[in-house]
Amino acid sequence: MNYPRALQNLINKLAHLPGVGPKTAERYAFYLLRKNENELEELANSITNLKKEEKICHQCLALAESDPCDICADPNRTSDILCIVENIQDLIAIEQTGQYKGKYFVLGGLISMIDKIGPQDLNISALNLKIKNDKIKEIIIALNFTLEGETTSLYLQKLFKNKIKISRLAKGLPAGSDLEYADSNTLKSALQYRSEIK
Amino acid sequence: MNYPRALQNLINKLAHLPGVGPKTAERYAFYLLRKNENELEELANSITNLKKEEKICHQCLALAESDPCDICADPNRTSDILCIVENIQDLIAIEQTGQYKGKYFVLGGLISMIDKIGPQDLNISALNLKIKNDKIKEIIIALNFTLEGETTSLYLQKLFKNKIKISRLAKGLPAGSDLEYADSNTLKSALQYRSEIK
Repeated sequence: MNYPRALQNLINKLAHLPGVGPKTAERYAFYLLRKNENELEELANSITNLKKEEKICHQCLALAESDPCDICADPNRTSDILCIVENIQDLIAIEQTGQYKGKYFVLGGLISMIDKIGPQDLNISALNLKIKNDKIKEIIIALNFTLEGETTSLYLQKLFKNKIKISRLAKGLPAGSDLEYADSNTLKSALQYRSEIK
Repeated sequence: MNYPRALQNLINKLAHLPGVGPKTAERYAFYLLRKNENELEELANSITNLKKEEKICHQCLALAESDPCDICADPNRTSDILCIVENIQDLIAIEQTGQYKGKYFVLGGLISMIDKIGPQDLNISALNLKIKNDKIKEIIIALNFTLEGETTSLYLQKLFKNKIKISRLAKGLPAGSDLEYADSNTLKSALQYRSEIK
């Protein structure tokens, strides 16, 4: 005895979502079962439309509603500073701080030995071209402080060293964090990049 | 700056799934973004079809592909023993043990003070009718050992006491469990319902 076919079918599909096993997929499916047909239709449509409405901005290679995207098309943003991010998620995280008024560039991944991702798999040549064409003066490397992020960061530093100004996000203790529980790497960086109080 | 509309729309919808917050919804949406249009179409269809193919078996009130369902229609199953379960999930869990060869009845919920669910919200009158019509000799109460399950169980016991034979699932230590970590309630039951070794 199994669940009715339509239900089992949905459970199987939902179980492919990242971090979702059969039990969680069941829970989602039973939640959906309590929704009316209109609500299900809406969810189904938003899944179908996901790819159809997707565009890539050819300026920054970010996923966007229009090409160029709102940020690239904005004349009020400084166009000679480029913030290099891994993906649109990171771009939006930085954008939400409201601190950055330059342009972005989406690298599309990070160099990874394990996943066999090399520089050739990233948007490096497009980055090179953009830096030349747009007369970029400074790049801000805003990549994860993980092994992959550091590797990619090092690669970019070597590539653009002595050509343009390069900066990285500050590494240090996160807001609200407990010094006692900080790992020694973070603490080392926090000491090294300590800021003077004036 | 937000995600492109189609993406944000899907994230908002996925964030309604039980236990899913905006971050997990984002993760699911980005996973779906990497799928091709056919795969998205299939997922969307299985959501749309969920309700369309859904049927309720009028014998046991379980969600099924056909009415009566395979179990109720099976002439090889004992028809005078009725296992009372909360929902189809529990029915399937019992069915998967392969131990039970009688029929089922889905109560459709449990009595809950907090959620304001009373006996009138459950399929009690249908149960009453089925017990009479099908000349049921024994009911097995297979409800959760939670406050709600126990309350509902007590209610059913009072309702059918001295009319038919009533049994409940055994309460005891789960397979593979550590006696040291068992709660005293479970341990008490395990002692009380200890089985003789012959």
